[in-house]
Formats: sequence, structure tokens, C-alpha cells
Amino acid sequence: MMNRRQFNAALIGAAATAALPRDLFAALRVDVPRVNGGRLNAHLTELSRFGRNAVGGVSRVAYSDADREARAYVMELMRAAKLEPTIDAAGNIIGRRAGQDASLRPMLVGSHIDSVPEGGNFDGQVGSMGAIEVAQTLSEHSIVTRHPLEVVIWQNEEGGLYGSRSVSGDVNPRELANVSRSGKTIAEGIAFLGGDVAKLAEVRRMPGSIAGYLELHIEQGGTLARDRVNIGVVDGIVGINQWEVTVTGFSNHAGTTAMNARRDALLAAARFVELVNRTVISIPGRQVGTVGRIQAFPGAPNVVPGKVVCTLELRDLDAKKIMMVYRRIVAGAEKIARDTGTSFAYQDIHTDIPAVTDPRFRAVIARSAKELELTTRQLPSGAGHDAQAMARIGPTGMIFVPSQEGISHSPRELSTAGDITNGANVLLRSLLALDSQLG
Amino acid sequence: MMNRRQFNAALIGAAATAALPRDLFAALRVDVPRVNGGRLNAHLTELSRFGRNAVGGVSRVAYSDADREARAYVMELMRAAKLEPTIDAAGNIIGRRAGQDASLRPMLVGSHIDSVPEGGNFDGQVGSMGAIEVAQTLSEHSIVTRHPLEVVIWQNEEGGLYGSRSVSGDVNPRELANVSRSGKTIAEGIAFLGGDVAKLAEVRRMPGSIAGYLELHIEQGGTLARDRVNIGVVDGIVGINQWEVTVTGFSNHAGTTAMNARRDALLAAARFVELVNRTVISIPGRQVGTVGRIQAFPGAPNVVPGKVVCTLELRDLDAKKIMMVYRRIVAGAEKIARDTGTSFAYQDIHTDIPAVTDPRFRAVIARSAKELELTTRQLPSGAGHDAQAMARIGPTGMIFVPSQEGISHSPRELSTAGDITNGANVLLRSLLALDSQLG
Repeated sequence: MMNRRQFNAALIGAAATAALPRDLFAALRVDVPRVNGGRLNAHLTELSRFGRNAVGGVSRVAYSDADREARAYVMELMRAAKLEPTIDAAGNIIGRRAGQDASLRPMLVGSHIDSVPEGGNFDGQVGSMGAIEVAQTLSEHSIVTRHPLEVVIWQNEEGGLYGSRSVSGDVNPRELANVSRSGKTIAEGIAFLGGDVAKLAEVRRMPGSIAGYLELHIEQGGTLARDRVNIGVVDGIVGINQWEVTVTGFSNHAGTTAMNARRDALLAAARFVELVNRTVISIPGRQVGTVGRIQAFPGAPNVVPGKVVCTLELRDLDAKKIMMVYRRIVAGAEKIARDTGTSFAYQDIHTDIPAVTDPRFRAVIARSAKELELTTRQLPSGAGHDAQAMARIGPTGMIFVPSQEGISHSPRELSTAGDITNGANVLLRSLLALDSQLG
Repeated sequence: MMNRRQFNAALIGAAATAALPRDLFAALRVDVPRVNGGRLNAHLTELSRFGRNAVGGVSRVAYSDADREARAYVMELMRAAKLEPTIDAAGNIIGRRAGQDASLRPMLVGSHIDSVPEGGNFDGQVGSMGAIEVAQTLSEHSIVTRHPLEVVIWQNEEGGLYGSRSVSGDVNPRELANVSRSGKTIAEGIAFLGGDVAKLAEVRRMPGSIAGYLELHIEQGGTLARDRVNIGVVDGIVGINQWEVTVTGFSNHAGTTAMNARRDALLAAARFVELVNRTVISIPGRQVGTVGRIQAFPGAPNVVPGKVVCTLELRDLDAKKIMMVYRRIVAGAEKIARDTGTSFAYQDIHTDIPAVTDPRFRAVIARSAKELELTTRQLPSGAGHDAQAMARIGPTGMIFVPSQEGISHSPRELSTAGDITNGANVLLRSLLALDSQLG
């Protein structure tokens, strides 16, 4: 087995050849090192202190004190891993590590540490701690990648990929006035984290400006855990369309208004919720549809609701299919409106276009897992991820590890220490393989 | 035509006879005076200044500044009508007028001036201004009733008949900690109005302690206006049962949780809203059922709701029928729970038992209207009223005037000046007839 200096030299030599061996480490007869799983899981436990709530999860919404404190902890870990962390104008934390060839575009690895209200300890956090662990492992084994390496902790993923979308240039300036779950606007939140919205344009990276992006994440669905598959190779990230739906009827006295004289907006909204469910499940495929928020006005037990505001969210890998489902729902709601004397209005509130991962990245991830004797399955991501934004500027891959019972966005979210360590090892191996292959 | 002194003497003489004539004024050949309709409607307009909102109604919830200011105005009107207003320990305004026979139990006439949020200018206000107008008319015509007269403005009718239920002894001390729409607790609100909860027991009146209670009110339903009937003779006030319904499913990620793996509490709640409507209309009768408030938790567009809290309200003149409808709904919800993997729990939050009006009062009101050449219809009240509480301590009658389009608890609430004047004249005539009949 060659020493590290010899290995690094061989890496350069291999990259210089026209036809790179499919597995450089195998070709060079060196073992790819393994991450320190105990340390990785210990870091996850330490991270769970920030924003911990009584029910065992975290409430660490972006721009909260807990978020900022956790980010300070993350920057300490980066320094221990010999990364040089800085905060960009969008509030993202970027830990840099020089590569052997400064003329190459950087490889990015990352995830997020913000959570939903009453979230769990794994969503985003596994990929964040995993990326730092990979960097620390490289450092401990004195491996220098060809490409410059950037470990990125994206800010405010849960609120709408604000950090990663700033980098892909997809944040509309108007969005900076949106109020986040912390109560702060996006602009205030970015300043709170140490960013500078006045310089937001500077963080933008153009398509083709990165060598690639890799993200490790928990599945958040139940299929890998149920079928005892170790590693998910993500083939794409679904698009997400969200609307605010306003149902208008007529508010009236709940005692004196006969049932047949009512224009009950909540009765109409209830039929709408049922319609969304029925429409989504009536079409073959993996699309999902959700009404997650609802409010009736004026909202008193003794008043027939005259107005209801609710949300509609549809997700699929195919943006056209999302719109087809949406149009069917809108058509169905017209009948509900006629039957109940109400009207429906729809306002777009959010759109994430679907993102397909790079086939080379998928192949490398699958092969890396197999070399580690781990089982794999290719699957789409039903959840949105920062990888979506990165897919707009460079080739992207995502690695999933199982979520027990598929529970996510909940304090009961759980991935086992073994699965997390497996995921980080696949991340490390995939990164090194891609580093040797990519220009 | 005799003069007023002679009239008052005749009134005493008539009461002393064993068999009172059915219509004393007719027997005595005097005209019952008419109220001053212009003044009455002007008072209503002036009252609408207090808590007026931009959309033309009032937001004068109990214990608000607007409520207190309007009450000061009401007390001025009482003094002008030669009533002696005081505030009782429960915060009710009582304007007293001595009768000819101090040994007789008092006749009470009244209503309320508090409103729902974004309420109208007639609910409660017509009966309050009408009662004061009746007293002023009596004063101007120097008519002294046999019974002592009390014009009562009950506090916080809309929040749950707190003023009148204090007098009937039906306020549970625990209710004083309830938070009203003003943000104040009931106890704080009573103090704010000049009452004294420490002395609340003193306002209680025992059954049999009043000669009777009359209330003029707008119908709040659309039947009188639609059928062009002048006066409604209320045969009873429906009972009201309210429950808080908690639907428990399982909160999960809206992108990664397949449709068939969800335990969506909002889908279950939507089916419940539909079930309530279907059950209530499937049974013959005038019962009504309403879900007026709903909230999904955690309430994010991208999270499958794990919990929904909503209200259920059922009203009918027959308490047994309310419970029959309730049991059918609960049984139907069990199937929804099985189908959706959720559970339903019910908590009683409010009960008003049905109240039947006194047949003698109904007859007097109907005859008084006929003498004024007004058309009448007997009908139940779908709304709760202070008369419900009064029915527990003495014989009670209610007079309805038409509500245009049946709109109530809304700035669009409207009763015409002519209808209001008619109602006050029926109130005056009924009061005098009952005054001559009752012991």
C-alpha cells in the first residue's frame, strides 16, 4: 500500500491520463479510508442540543437564536476538520479546502442545519455533519483532492432553499421581504446570520461554474427502511407547486340560517380537501397532494364561515403532471362552488421546478455503495432539497439513508447510527471517485 | 277619553277584579299610546357610532372600550326616559321605574348592546333601544304600570349570556376565568364595566321572583322578511350544544409520505365537516349544525396535518333531538377514523338548554300585533338570547321583527325603521296588557 504522498501523486497522474480508470482507488490498489462513524454520530448528538425541545426534537427554524448558535458550533467543527469557514453574502457557511489543482472548478458537498418547527434531529443534519466528517477524514488521511473542495451549510432550506437558490441566482428580490418562521424577513434573517443582502448578487454562480455537487440526506420516506435497503440513489427531486386557495361564501348566524340557505365556505373547503385527495390518488404515479394549512373566518363556533383560506401543494418529478393534476382539481372545485354557492380563487405561493440528478453521479454512488457491500435502490426524492438549486448550475448527485418508519419533520424522525455511517462512507467514496473523473 | 290620572286609577281597579278583561285598554276605551319611531331609530343610529368599523357595522365586543362607552350613552338615554339606571354586580345596566303597587314583582324588558366581532347595527340594539323607548313613551304619557318596571341591558350576550345567566344563577364560578373576545377574562370584564364579581351571588333572582320578561329582537333569520310578515311571536329558543372536536392522525412530510401511507387529520376532519352537514339535513326538522372554527397542526403547506381541532355546534328546540343528531355524527366519525387511521375526541364546551316561551305571553303578543293591524307568525328562535336565562326564573315572551335577507352577525345586518317601530309598539302594547293581567 502506497503512502499518502505517493497516493496524491498517483491521483494527479491518473487525472492526466485521457481514460481514467473507473475506480481509481482500486486501480491504485489503495483502500479508500473510512469515516469515523462514532465521531460523526457524536457530532449529530451535540448538534441536537441547539433548539432542542421537550419532545426530543429540535425547533431550530432559520434565523432563530438556536440556528445562529448551531452555526457557530458547525464552524468550530469545520476548523477542527481543517476547513476554512466563511459566511457568504447570502448567509451560507462555506468551509474551503484547497485542491491539488487550483485551476479546477470546485466540488461542493453540503446540506443544511435549519429545521421545521418541532422538527427532528436528522433532516439536513446528517448531510451537514457527514460532509464535515468526510473533510475531516480526508484531512486525517492527508488526502488532497484534485478539485478544490467546499463544504457548504446552506441557510434556510426549510423555508424555501433561500441559501442555495441565492447561489443559483433564483431568489427574486421581492422574496427578501417574505416573513420567515422566525418572524424575521428573509433580508433581516440573512443579516442576522452575518450575510449582506446588498451584496447578494456576488454569491451567484453561473451554470458550469462548479465541478459538481453531492448531498447526503435522510430519505424522509419509508421505502428504504421498510425494504431494508442501505442506500438510496436519488434519480431526481420532485417539483413542488404551492397555492393559497381562498374559498368565499357568506358568513351568517349559525342558529338562524337554515341549512339550505347557507353558503358555507368551510363545507366547500372540506369538499375541496376530499377532492384533492381523490384526484391525486386517481392518477397512476408517485405524485402527492396535500392541504396542510386551513383557517375559517370569522372562526367562531356560532358563525357559518364566510371565508376559508387553505393551502394546496402538489409534488411530482414531472412539472407537466403537476399542472395536469392541478387543472383537474380546479375543474372539480368549480362543481363544489356551484353546489355550495361559493367561489374558489387560487394564488401561486411557491414553485420548485423538478431537478434530475446527473447519471454519472448516480452510477458512481451506486458503485461506491456496492464496493462497501451495501444494497442500493434508485428512487426519486419527494422532498425538496438544496441539490435542486445546485442542479441548475452543475451536475448533482444525492445519497439517501433510511428513515425509520419514514417519519420526518417530526421529533420522531430517526436514522440509525449504522445507516448514517454507511451514508457518509458512500459520500466519501463517491466524492473521491468523482474527483478523479470530473474535469 | 279619560285623563292619565283616571286611567291609572282604572288600571288599579281592573287589577283588583278577579276576572281581568282580555284587553284592558279596549275595555277602558283608551288608546294605547304609540312609541316615537323617529326618536327610536335616531337612537339606534347614534348607538352605531360606538365601535363602528370601516365596513359599516360595529365591532363592539363585550368589555371593549366601545362597549363601555356605548353603555354610558345608554345610561344617559335611560335618565332622559326617567329611568333610574344602576349597574348590578354582574355588570348589567338596570333602569328602574316604580309601579303603582310596590308589592308586585317587577316586569323586566330588555336586550343587549354588545356585538360579535364585525357585527351589525341591529342585533340586541333594536330591543335595547326599543325597551328604553317604551319607558320614555310611558313617561311622556304619564302612564304608571302596576308592576315595577325594569329595563335591563344585559352584559356580554354574544359571549355566552353572562349577564342574564348571572341573574338566573347559571354562571359556574369557573366560567369567570374564561377569556372573552376582548382579551379580558369574564371576571376582568365585569370589573371593567363597573360590576363586582365578589358580590355576584347577590344579583341572582330565584324562580318566581319576577312577574315576567319581554324582549324585542331582530329575527336574524330570513323567514319574516321573505314572507313579508311584520311580527314574529317566538315559541321557543333553541338549545345550543357546542363541542371541541380533536382529530388525531400523524404529522409527516408532505413530499415523502405516499398518499396511502398517510394518516391525514385534515382529510379526516374534512370528511367530518361533510358528515355533520349530511347528518343534520338527513333528519326532518329545523335543527342546524355548524363547524365554524378549524385549525390544522402543525399548519404548514408542506406537512401532512397530524392534528386538527374544530368546533361542532348543534341547535334545536328539543334537547333530546340534539343528542340524537350528535350520536349519529359520532357514529359516522368512527368510520372516518377507521378509513383514515385517525381518532376523534369530543369535549363539551357549551350548552344552552332549550327555552319555551310562556303561552299567555305569546297570546298577548299576537293580539297586540293584530290590534296594530300587523301580521304575525309563530316561530322558534334559532339564536340564543338572554330570554333563555329569564325563562328559567319567570314567564317570558319574545317579539321578532324582520331581518332583511336573514343576514345577521354581519355589517350587512338590516331591519327597516318601520319594522323596528312596529316591534316597539307591539312591545309597549304587550307590556301594558301583561301588566294588567299578571299578578
